[in-house]
Amino acid sequence: MVTLPDTPDSVGTQLDSRNSDTASQLTQLDSRNSDTASQFSDTAGQSERAIKAAGGSSYAIKVTDLGVKAPYDEDNEVLSRQMHRDPRHGVPPQSQHVSLCHQYLPRTATNTTARLATLRGIMRTHSVHAYIVPSTDAHMSEYISERDARLGWLTGFTGSAGTAVVTQDKAALWTDSRYWTQAERELDCNWELQRTISIESIGMWILKAVPAEGKVSLDPFLFSIDTWKSYSRALHGSGRTLHPLETNLVDQAWGDQRPPPSSSEIYSLPAEFTGRSWQEKVAGIRQRMEQHVRRPTAVLLSGLEETAWLFNLRGDDIPYNPVFYSYTLLTNTTISLFVEESRLSAAARESLRSGCPGPLCVELQEYGQVSAHLRRYAQGSVTVWLGTEYTTYGLYAIIPQEKLLEESYSPVMMAKAVKNTHEQEMLRAAHVRDAVAVIQYLLWLEKAVPQGHVDEFSGAQQIDAFRWAQEHSRGPSFQSISASGLNAALAHYSPSNGSSRMLSAREMYLFDTGGQYLDGTTDITRTVHWGEPTPLQKEAYTRVLMGNIDLSRLIFPSNTAGRTVESFARRALWNVGLNYGHGTGHGIGNFLSVHEWPVGFQSNNVPLEAGMFTSIEPGYYQDGEFGIRIEDVALVVEAQTEHQSGEKPFLTFEVVSLVPYDRNLINLSLLSPEQIRYLNSYYERIRAHVGPELRRQRLEEAYAWLQESTEPFPVSSAGPAAAGTLALASLLSVLLSGLGA
Amino acid sequence: MVTLPDTPDSVGTQLDSRNSDTASQLTQLDSRNSDTASQFSDTAGQSERAIKAAGGSSYAIKVTDLGVKAPYDEDNEVLSRQMHRDPRHGVPPQSQHVSLCHQYLPRTATNTTARLATLRGIMRTHSVHAYIVPSTDAHMSEYISERDARLGWLTGFTGSAGTAVVTQDKAALWTDSRYWTQAERELDCNWELQRTISIESIGMWILKAVPAEGKVSLDPFLFSIDTWKSYSRALHGSGRTLHPLETNLVDQAWGDQRPPPSSSEIYSLPAEFTGRSWQEKVAGIRQRMEQHVRRPTAVLLSGLEETAWLFNLRGDDIPYNPVFYSYTLLTNTTISLFVEESRLSAAARESLRSGCPGPLCVELQEYGQVSAHLRRYAQGSVTVWLGTEYTTYGLYAIIPQEKLLEESYSPVMMAKAVKNTHEQEMLRAAHVRDAVAVIQYLLWLEKAVPQGHVDEFSGAQQIDAFRWAQEHSRGPSFQSISASGLNAALAHYSPSNGSSRMLSAREMYLFDTGGQYLDGTTDITRTVHWGEPTPLQKEAYTRVLMGNIDLSRLIFPSNTAGRTVESFARRALWNVGLNYGHGTGHGIGNFLSVHEWPVGFQSNNVPLEAGMFTSIEPGYYQDGEFGIRIEDVALVVEAQTEHQSGEKPFLTFEVVSLVPYDRNLINLSLLSPEQIRYLNSYYERIRAHVGPELRRQRLEEAYAWLQESTEPFPVSSAGPAAAGTLALASLLSVLLSGLGA
Repeated sequence: MVTLPDTPDSVGTQLDSRNSDTASQLTQLDSRNSDTASQFSDTAGQSERAIKAAGGSSYAIKVTDLGVKAPYDEDNEVLSRQMHRDPRHGVPPQSQHVSLCHQYLPRTATNTTARLATLRGIMRTHSVHAYIVPSTDAHMSEYISERDARLGWLTGFTGSAGTAVVTQDKAALWTDSRYWTQAERELDCNWELQRTISIESIGMWILKAVPAEGKVSLDPFLFSIDTWKSYSRALHGSGRTLHPLETNLVDQAWGDQRPPPSSSEIYSLPAEFTGRSWQEKVAGIRQRMEQHVRRPTAVLLSGLEETAWLFNLRGDDIPYNPVFYSYTLLTNTTISLFVEESRLSAAARESLRSGCPGPLCVELQEYGQVSAHLRRYAQGSVTVWLGTEYTTYGLYAIIPQEKLLEESYSPVMMAKAVKNTHEQEMLRAAHVRDAVAVIQYLLWLEKAVPQGHVDEFSGAQQIDAFRWAQEHSRGPSFQSISASGLNAALAHYSPSNGSSRMLSAREMYLFDTGGQYLDGTTDITRTVHWGEPTPLQKEAYTRVLMGNIDLSRLIFPSNTAGRTVESFARRALWNVGLNYGHGTGHGIGNFLSVHEWPVGFQSNNVPLEAGMFTSIEPGYYQDGEFGIRIEDVALVVEAQTEHQSGEKPFLTFEVVSLVPYDRNLINLSLLSPEQIRYLNSYYERIRAHVGPELRRQRLEEAYAWLQESTEPFPVSSAGPAAAGTLALASLLSVLLSGLGA
Repeated sequence: MVTLPDTPDSVGTQLDSRNSDTASQLTQLDSRNSDTASQFSDTAGQSERAIKAAGGSSYAIKVTDLGVKAPYDEDNEVLSRQMHRDPRHGVPPQSQHVSLCHQYLPRTATNTTARLATLRGIMRTHSVHAYIVPSTDAHMSEYISERDARLGWLTGFTGSAGTAVVTQDKAALWTDSRYWTQAERELDCNWELQRTISIESIGMWILKAVPAEGKVSLDPFLFSIDTWKSYSRALHGSGRTLHPLETNLVDQAWGDQRPPPSSSEIYSLPAEFTGRSWQEKVAGIRQRMEQHVRRPTAVLLSGLEETAWLFNLRGDDIPYNPVFYSYTLLTNTTISLFVEESRLSAAARESLRSGCPGPLCVELQEYGQVSAHLRRYAQGSVTVWLGTEYTTYGLYAIIPQEKLLEESYSPVMMAKAVKNTHEQEMLRAAHVRDAVAVIQYLLWLEKAVPQGHVDEFSGAQQIDAFRWAQEHSRGPSFQSISASGLNAALAHYSPSNGSSRMLSAREMYLFDTGGQYLDGTTDITRTVHWGEPTPLQKEAYTRVLMGNIDLSRLIFPSNTAGRTVESFARRALWNVGLNYGHGTGHGIGNFLSVHEWPVGFQSNNVPLEAGMFTSIEPGYYQDGEFGIRIEDVALVVEAQTEHQSGEKPFLTFEVVSLVPYDRNLINLSLLSPEQIRYLNSYYERIRAHVGPELRRQRLEEAYAWLQESTEPFPVSSAGPAAAGTLALASLLSVLLSGLGA
């Protein structure tokens, strides 16, 4: 699955202004609620973590018409100015004015007047002048549950990235260009839409909207450390204070209507599907603590994958991600797991308590007790190690500065990133079965599309079905992206059961899908054309493929940062002035997140090491015409090199996604002999690994399709092997001069 | 000239432990003081800025023998422990013990007992328990003047990077692996050598050496903002306070013996050698201030190149860098230049005062007045914009946090980085004349080396002489690096007049040199072999060249960060397990610094834009055998591409260094047809630009040498042009299959 544009220190180039909205090419199908407002959502956002599922929320409304946002009401502005005349005004009563806006309510929007009135009442009881509402949850999760969709409930806006600020007489939503049209349709006239996402601009808005000495509040458990600091900086010295309020005011306003917490079972993974026992993992983390120069006494885990991985537990609190709400405080002598105990399966509970009493005894505590427990713990002579990329300011602020050991990622994140041999084998095996499903789908499409009965939505259902039929399947690992023709290049596009585009032999088709299996998580994108592609389509596809190949076959030193090599996936496009606006890859888990920190090619990813898995996924998007992405998952492995600078072996990638590319879209003449040779050896591996599995599953037609699709390509102008290059080059030179070339 | 290993977020690979000291391959010749202790200095350091010239200092001692550092004295340790028993002890009198160490003084070391005693006395009068002494100056300059060589004077250690901490009974020096041997030789037994440079480790040492409630001091005008914060963090919560002392205690101890400030003339550049008038530059910076969202009222310039560039002034306070000690506070209505007024030439003074009174009137103030002036200015309703990468904590701390606009680089640094058309033309012209000097040197070497009369030192003198003979020459732009055979791969090597290695037709020779010209600064490295290179030498040289070519001919989107593309310079080496441990390039000035911020391929460099100049300099170093580096300076220019993603044209490089590579070291069979074609077109440009200049200077023999050295290479196995590739590839395929290949 594609990731997002890197932060400014990345390759730093976006598509042009016409294409900028296509930088993220992600459209999502929500098979359960395809006709809801969530159809506007896509998976791109400011950060990889900002991606989340917006589908299926209870407040979603049907979108059957396009509404036009009422212009900003000037009277409202006057009221606001009046209030500002007197800074001692305090918190004024709610304006009568706003409720009049009903008459402008477009049918695509949600009436938020009552919700805002309730929130403003609560704000007054807390003497809060402005309240900031983000789109994240308390774990900085990439996907969030309905219960955490506070921004959506309050504003009506269902995009995945945004920030709202509410004062007594104003309410504004900030979001990025991908969501402007969607926000215009979904917001009612209580809301101003701010077409930017810089915290500086939010801060300036607040400075205007809030009187001097006013109180600006937020829930510190919903903001990252960095975001909190940015708000704090924006208000610094202005006389307004930034006041963390542990009570979430939106939750109070939401009240009974807020979806309840998940109550489904949290279970232990069978031993065969774990890399090692949780006790061994805990011992490993404690060893890292001992070896650290700062000698931390505890590690705080607030990322949901951290706790799930550490204890080999899984749940289903968040769509597509088999995790559950929890925190862990792992000290050198104790283990506290903050989770709803009643939800643990008997086996899970037994496993966690098997070491009691003792340093391997897991003490179960209420999920909501983490702050109080951490506060007590931090009173001692302790040092708490945490990952600043995903810990909230709320937890961070509990620990005195000198007792903090701040690193971007916790040692659990770092340990999880490097898969051991068994975990690697499991991921490879899951990818072989996943390849069977994808190959079945490609074959099915080849036959069904020309009959004109497949649309984007039914296609996505079909591949989901093929995956479900595979052993150990636990469903899709994210909302399947299924986009035909120009839809693959449109940012705000989303198909639904009723309106999705027909697949056609006259258009390209892009599908970006993945599966959860007990032994691994998969993620693959293929782009196909069953008819006659245009020369530009063929050139762009071939150059995207060349980029995929060039990065996949790169040999690089151990500990190379991904962002320093991701340009190899772009160079073939760059050569002719083309590019893509999203990231080039992300880590992936063993039956965990499809986007797994901290591996990948972005600036906040850690250096590549043997045993890490990452996707490699260059693309190209032609606005209004087509979209291309070729995505594989690859394992970082040791390379065989003639020499070796440095103590560690050089590295390269072993691609574990095993599905052939579309021969119909490859312009072979653009590929170098080395690229063709690489492609042929990859196809040999596909045949060797997937062929037998297809036969085992008695999928003979698919097997025949695979054989045909993996026929070796002719290596046109190159010698047979590196060793003979010189001799052959001389020979060719002679031949060529004889030919007068 | 080579730059340094990138910070951890870089490519992140160092050569192995055997080679790690060769990561910086720089050995320097000091033609004036070749037999002094400065012979140990090299130009690599922790950051690019840490590089500086250590040569020629008055405290240097002759190195005629290798001394062995006396082991750390255990009695001293006991005394230290005794003091620590009583935290109320205060600052104890100096130990009698230390002076005994004289008897162990190696002949390579400096006796620092008296200096330390003086410093400790001064520390006592300030109640300072520990005093930290860095290697930088108040402008974070890359090269420093003798007057700023405080670390060298105090410790005897003349390496370019290090930190000393002195307490009443202990003194320690921290430096990195490049300098361990040198430090052992140069330090007397008053000093412990700490073989690390982490501030955390310095902090832990201080915590042990300083009693609780002790006072740790430093001169805040010699520490970067980041370094200050790191020390502050290291001591936080420990009971020891970090106390900035504006009086520099080393300067007090140094007293009369400290070299006086420079008194040489500061002059205006003739108009023909400037890109635009200083008034236009000031207007441009003020425009950037107005356009900035924070609306800064002033820009503070503390980098010496900033003031020199802004006012088109030059001086010679620092070796190789035509700058002068100064600060500038440019506000929206006033201009304050802090400089010794009497040093300004009459013309310079007239130019600066020509706009008085008015917003383009430069008010001249004493250099030492900058802090007081800034303090007064910061009391108003102001916002001061500064570059955090090179402003000292001392200046930074004067400005209240809410009045600061912090960016990595000031708008002057950013403006200076993009050369206008005239500046580009000047740099091109300087490089043509510089190429003449380098070609003369190569020709001279070719004739003189076989006669056995050239050594590294006389070679460096010869190329300096060739440069001096060129129009507008102002001497070398850094200490010429001239290294024969294994010396090119040795970190701590340095030639001297008496002991430098002979150049030989049996060895490789690397020279990394540059010139200052009124119209531009140059920097070029060539590696040559006049005899029979080994296969490994040839392969490594060819792969370094391939890296240089691959990066030079890369086409990339506007605003691409250098660090995301520098791996293209490494891939050919990586392919066979080779690498180099230094950076790939740096910006360069117009008659300014040879390492000019903020351009380059490191993580703290800004994205590449048309009009920027950078060096491109991959290398390879085989410990104990040879060293290779191929360095050119290149201008970022717009590329012609078939398509264009994004609003801005794609970019590529135009190499402006115009000296052919050594044909004797190129294994042509490793190069791709595209690389050979690129090389041939580069050679055509050399002929077109340098050929006429050689003739104009009546250097006919050099002209003939150039023609011979730039003969086009045969493009062995490739088609004549991209357009015909497919047809020819098919043809070749047929031919090959006929041949059974």
